[in-house]
Amino acid sequence: MAANKEIEEGIGFSPKFDAHGLITAIAQDAETGQILMVAYMNAKALDLTIKTGNAVYFSRSRQKLWKKGEESGHVQKVEQILVDCDQDCLVLKVSVDQGQCHVGYQSCFYRAVKHEKGVELEFIAEKVYDPNEAYKKK
Amino acid sequence: MAANKEIEEGIGFSPKFDAHGLITAIAQDAETGQILMVAYMNAKALDLTIKTGNAVYFSRSRQKLWKKGEESGHVQKVEQILVDCDQDCLVLKVSVDQGQCHVGYQSCFYRAVKHEKGVELEFIAEKVYDPNEAYKKK
Repeated sequence: MAANKEIEEGIGFSPKFDAHGLITAIAQDAETGQILMVAYMNAKALDLTIKTGNAVYFSRSRQKLWKKGEESGHVQKVEQILVDCDQDCLVLKVSVDQGQCHVGYQSCFYRAVKHEKGVELEFIAEKVYDPNEAYKKK
Repeated sequence: MAANKEIEEGIGFSPKFDAHGLITAIAQDAETGQILMVAYMNAKALDLTIKTGNAVYFSRSRQKLWKKGEESGHVQKVEQILVDCDQDCLVLKVSVDQGQCHVGYQSCFYRAVKHEKGVELEFIAEKVYDPNEAYKKK
């Protein structure tokens, strides 16, 4: 198969990392289908995720591996990893407990754009935990 | 509110475009919750999406605005736009007909990583249309 066709139609897993060595990973609740968060993985994070069965990301702000839940306790058990046609994006189907967003919501996507002017947001969810409790200063 | 807090807890829509002027946009089937594709928007694409109610992206490969469905006919009617905590990622809840992926599948995520070795994929979907028909040479 030609290279492109192989990537799109083949069974070889060839994740395409960007110039920073990262690939986008979307965590989706395996049960409800809710999109919980979007993060990034380097090759090491992806490898650890596959091997341990728990989501490991690469934190761009802290520039280090980030075992999801290492501070908050809100880990993600990975049920399935999907890859898209050009293999530059992953979907992780995850089992989770309450509260995947550091702001206190179940999902990072707790606001929607209001109306067609597109300047204001409305909240579409309630907080499910108190982040001040979960991220206690050590 | 402090800038960060305003972005995370406020009602002002301040989409954060990256160094290339783009923001990640995930199209999710509003009815089934299936993640259909991941693409990118520049400010103009986002503006057109909000104003027209149909998804418009920015094609990185072609470096131009891409009205989803302009060639294939498989448009995305946008029901709702969600934004995440730090406002650098969007979820578009969309109504669609059959076949959102250019390879012929309903979703771009038609393969899953097999087993814990992570080197091989398995197909988890069937094609729903023939891309050779949809993208006829003009």
